[in-house]
Amino acid sequence: MRASVLRGVGDVVVQERPVPEPGPREVLVRVTAVGTCGSDTHYYEHGRIGPFVVREPLVLGHEAAGVVVARGAEVSRHEPGQRVSIEPGVPCFVCAQCRAGRYNLCPDVRFFATPPVDGAFCEYVAVHEEFAYAVPDSMTDEAAALCEPLSVGVWACRKGGVGPGSRVLVTGAGPIGLVATQTARAFGASEVVVTDVNPRRLELASELGATGTVDVRESAIDFEPEVLLECSGAPRAAADAIRRVTRAGRVVLVGMGGDELPLPLSHVQNFEIEVTGTFRYANTWPTAIALAASGAVDLDRLVTHRFGLAGVEQALTASARDETAVKTVVRPQE
Amino acid sequence: MRASVLRGVGDVVVQERPVPEPGPREVLVRVTAVGTCGSDTHYYEHGRIGPFVVREPLVLGHEAAGVVVARGAEVSRHEPGQRVSIEPGVPCFVCAQCRAGRYNLCPDVRFFATPPVDGAFCEYVAVHEEFAYAVPDSMTDEAAALCEPLSVGVWACRKGGVGPGSRVLVTGAGPIGLVATQTARAFGASEVVVTDVNPRRLELASELGATGTVDVRESAIDFEPEVLLECSGAPRAAADAIRRVTRAGRVVLVGMGGDELPLPLSHVQNFEIEVTGTFRYANTWPTAIALAASGAVDLDRLVTHRFGLAGVEQALTASARDETAVKTVVRPQE
Amino acid sequence: MRASVLRGVGDVVVQERPVPEPGPREVLVRVTAVGTCGSDTHYYEHGRIGPFVVREPLVLGHEAAGVVVARGAEVSRHEPGQRVSIEPGVPCFVCAQCRAGRYNLCPDVRFFATPPVDGAFCEYVAVHEEFAYAVPDSMTDEAAALCEPLSVGVWACRKGGVGPGSRVLVTGAGPIGLVATQTARAFGASEVVVTDVNPRRLELASELGATGTVDVRESAIDFEPEVLLECSGAPRAAADAIRRVTRAGRVVLVGMGGDELPLPLSHVQNFEIEVTGTFRYANTWPTAIALAASGAVDLDRLVTHRFGLAGVEQALTASARDETAVKTVVRPQE
Amino acid sequence: MRASVLRGVGDVVVQERPVPEPGPREVLVRVTAVGTCGSDTHYYEHGRIGPFVVREPLVLGHEAAGVVVARGAEVSRHEPGQRVSIEPGVPCFVCAQCRAGRYNLCPDVRFFATPPVDGAFCEYVAVHEEFAYAVPDSMTDEAAALCEPLSVGVWACRKGGVGPGSRVLVTGAGPIGLVATQTARAFGASEVVVTDVNPRRLELASELGATGTVDVRESAIDFEPEVLLECSGAPRAAADAIRRVTRAGRVVLVGMGGDELPLPLSHVQNFEIEVTGTFRYANTWPTAIALAASGAVDLDRLVTHRFGLAGVEQALTASARDETAVKTVVRPQE
Repeated sequence: MRASVLRGVGDVVVQERPVPEPGPREVLVRVTAVGTCGSDTHYYEHGRIGPFVVREPLVLGHEAAGVVVARGAEVSRHEPGQRVSIEPGVPCFVCAQCRAGRYNLCPDVRFFATPPVDGAFCEYVAVHEEFAYAVPDSMTDEAAALCEPLSVGVWACRKGGVGPGSRVLVTGAGPIGLVATQTARAFGASEVVVTDVNPRRLELASELGATGTVDVRESAIDFEPEVLLECSGAPRAAADAIRRVTRAGRVVLVGMGGDELPLPLSHVQNFEIEVTGTFRYANTWPTAIALAASGAVDLDRLVTHRFGLAGVEQALTASARDETAVKTVVRPQE
Repeated sequence: MRASVLRGVGDVVVQERPVPEPGPREVLVRVTAVGTCGSDTHYYEHGRIGPFVVREPLVLGHEAAGVVVARGAEVSRHEPGQRVSIEPGVPCFVCAQCRAGRYNLCPDVRFFATPPVDGAFCEYVAVHEEFAYAVPDSMTDEAAALCEPLSVGVWACRKGGVGPGSRVLVTGAGPIGLVATQTARAFGASEVVVTDVNPRRLELASELGATGTVDVRESAIDFEPEVLLECSGAPRAAADAIRRVTRAGRVVLVGMGGDELPLPLSHVQNFEIEVTGTFRYANTWPTAIALAASGAVDLDRLVTHRFGLAGVEQALTASARDETAVKTVVRPQE
Repeated sequence: MRASVLRGVGDVVVQERPVPEPGPREVLVRVTAVGTCGSDTHYYEHGRIGPFVVREPLVLGHEAAGVVVARGAEVSRHEPGQRVSIEPGVPCFVCAQCRAGRYNLCPDVRFFATPPVDGAFCEYVAVHEEFAYAVPDSMTDEAAALCEPLSVGVWACRKGGVGPGSRVLVTGAGPIGLVATQTARAFGASEVVVTDVNPRRLELASELGATGTVDVRESAIDFEPEVLLECSGAPRAAADAIRRVTRAGRVVLVGMGGDELPLPLSHVQNFEIEVTGTFRYANTWPTAIALAASGAVDLDRLVTHRFGLAGVEQALTASARDETAVKTVVRPQE
Repeated sequence: MRASVLRGVGDVVVQERPVPEPGPREVLVRVTAVGTCGSDTHYYEHGRIGPFVVREPLVLGHEAAGVVVARGAEVSRHEPGQRVSIEPGVPCFVCAQCRAGRYNLCPDVRFFATPPVDGAFCEYVAVHEEFAYAVPDSMTDEAAALCEPLSVGVWACRKGGVGPGSRVLVTGAGPIGLVATQTARAFGASEVVVTDVNPRRLELASELGATGTVDVRESAIDFEPEVLLECSGAPRAAADAIRRVTRAGRVVLVGMGGDELPLPLSHVQNFEIEVTGTFRYANTWPTAIALAASGAVDLDRLVTHRFGLAGVEQALTASARDETAVKTVVRPQE
């Protein structure tokens, strides 16, 4: 099969690789769509993310969907031909974190496109049958792929306790901020205010359900949220937003960036704000698929650019080159 | 009656004041013991804490116990002669925070020794009958007074989810760190490691149940807690301690000091640490009294110095003058 | 003012009564619409509900809305002319239940139309300013009144942990079952199956968002819900429905009827089902108003009959006489 | 090796069987002590428990401890010679229940001594390394085995939200009631009242920490618990006890017996009681070992009778024959 391989910083090529052999409980999936994520671009540009270093050639891409074409010997779940959305991290299942239901915190998780585990910018991947989820025919391949970032939004809303009537602030209107906005609305939030410095993205946020937007280059945030979903990754902006959160509010730190966030201590204490970070997600796919399938969340609206495997490099650099880019998708079969 | 009055920075005198008249649902309490808190000393030294400024003469002291001597017209709870521990903050009861059970976050709470509300360094106070709690005869007056700082420990342990088998790190072995240590043990924690820079206090922590101590001037913390009860108020030490917390751990910021805490963002995200602050407490007195009455927590052991009303100034400055001081108590009737 | 007064079993008359004088924190509300509830009919037919016996003439009606026309001396909330929805139970605020945020369990709550407290089938009522909630102009008087039964649905969905993607079974398609159905959908439930023996009501359930209906006279329930909202009050039907609930599911017993429910013990154990009952609601009005105002829940659709004060008797007996009746409303100003 | 095999109702014999071969992640454990449980006796007497029917010869016993003597190829946890307590149910790890942290509800769990899975009344068993837990040398073999029933108590206390200051009612002072009593105390409960009809057991409950006992043949329960741990398995007694539970209280149905429990509906509703059942336990062993190792719970005190493999039949019938029997232990090496 053809696979797009990162050989080093700034060096991506299409190579022939053997089609993977599914393990006993794995299905073989012909990949139809893969979203491009900031982490893919970061590996492409820097060759590492924190402790994860690209030492061997690596296939990027972890927001993937496809069609089941073969099954391992013990698989009982999906018939060949079944369209599936892929959850890209398979944990060890037996450690204390896994057994407590927090499998996203498993120290031994194998996660797509995280060295040394290959991802999905290729024609076929093998996946544990329980980490491939059937999607309805009404859902596009791209929406099926984008159930991955949607899962980030679902997890953030769960952690933040977003529910009917919630007042939510989303800082940052990138792809994650935009799914968080939609998810918060789908969870019943009655107010969702979104901040960014890019008017085009704020406009898109409004189209996708934000009840208010703030261009923080021009105006201060004049809103007291119960829940802050921090998706900007800008520590100082995050700190400012935390000061807006009301009594007994929750802050979910989703955006990555900077090592230290200057937490406003007396505000956190006096208002007993709960602050937490998210690391991927756990048990989110059924909800994500339900939200996307019902139309409560519109994932297709996020896709602005599409490339084949030969265009992975362009996909990884689209955001830097084109400010209209929101979500770029790779379609390995094209 | 006699009352110790703070007239300005560094200016405390005993004055005659009228005995307060209990309202319809208040009891009049003859004060027997009042603990001295860091906030009292802060008002004495600086005349303010954040937005709370001493503009009129103020009676300090909010860790109080006494004996009921009279009752308002509608009181049904305590007979005269009943010894009580006093919860020093009475909220508005009807705002959204109060109705949600978070009355400590009531914006209109009236709290002892917080301008313009007088405290308990005096002979008599009037208290809502539901904020005076009967204590058993086996409990000393001083222990009854120190149910207030014990409530801070109970609240911290609840917020931190301390339970049977928990591994807890307490940073700071001042009075609050020492009650937090004992409370964590009483909540069932199997390991409680305490840090400080004062060997005497660390020794006391061990006597009171700490399973390990670390003098952070000499050694690094080599322990992975599930729960961090931050009682030092030193932002940099707090940040270092947060980096020790294990996956899905909780951090409770109890100690005050500094406005910004440099939160280690990627650790909080990768391990999904939950961080929160505490502001006083809510619904803690029954538990605090149960713990003190059963002997699970030893409050008397914390008292190192005692003064009468004429000695309030000495009480407020004892910690600064005498490094053996842990908890200083004022006994207004002596 | 005119008030409809229950003098004894089956004996309701319109009488002149003095307009109530609002207390210091009360607003005087001119009542515009009051829903009729099964409990009102029960008092009319039996003169009692359990321990609550009608010993003095009683004004019924507790699902009320109106317009603020005067304010007590200490009121700060509503200007005259403000349209409000009324929460009909004011608790003591200071008992252990109130202080824990469970004010619906306050033993000393004063609740409209519960002996000896008068209700709202009259021209004016006085209400604590914090228990009158402003509603937007877009909301009808009747919808404002029906925020009370909607609160029952909100409370049930909260207790049942209904959220995005939930699979919910609602047993009973009376007014409460119909609001529970709509609320579950508004909370994000992806499947809501409703049972009843009245095809007309099942049809209405479908119109209001049920994804499936079962006429239990004709077919068995073939659905495995995560959450059961029991609104039928039929103990045997409730027990049968509980047997359908899936692992770790929740059961909320909303419907009243019969003293003992034959709980299927081994199913509750083997599947670790959580079963609870609801008693009114707490802290639901802001959410209820948000849901009704946004159109997520349609309350107007439930109203089938309207009467003036002189028609209260007809309102109380409408359900028994007319099987098309769903919710009957009394409009005291007409 | 020698194994005690149940061949049919009332038919237990010692047979030779091959020593099991540990799988790649299993350890081989030489069994030192196995508690006898009511379910073992039930299989012996009836050949089935509900849907689980003994169709092939079955080794009973699931409360087991021993010493690691060999390890599978991929095992990293225990050195040979390590004494361990065994968690007897290994789930599938990947189903929705497992991934949510509720592995006790896994439909595919393989549980010791539940047909067709053999138990531990034999000399050697093979166990997943993560389901064998190292115990300290200070803990006896029997206490290590009885961490299994202790886990039942830990799970019940967690489900019931038992904590510092809780008021708990334990109905039934059999082995499970007695561990529940001790666990509740270890979780900080300040009052634990135990009921039974056997004065000897009530006396033992008092020795083990009960603060009150009630012989229900002689007196009514005069206590309002916040938490009811139902360990009698007598539906009518359970219903009576539920009526005692206070507002917002919790009921945990641990005892098995009878198919229907007559739930007092209006009490459950008016007081919003939460009722749930327990099915085994999940993630309890670390806590159970901590409680037993610290002395907070005394498991050795429960052991009244001991037998070798040849005495399994006597062990299974001890309770029926001897009313002084509490917990009977089989020691396969003797």
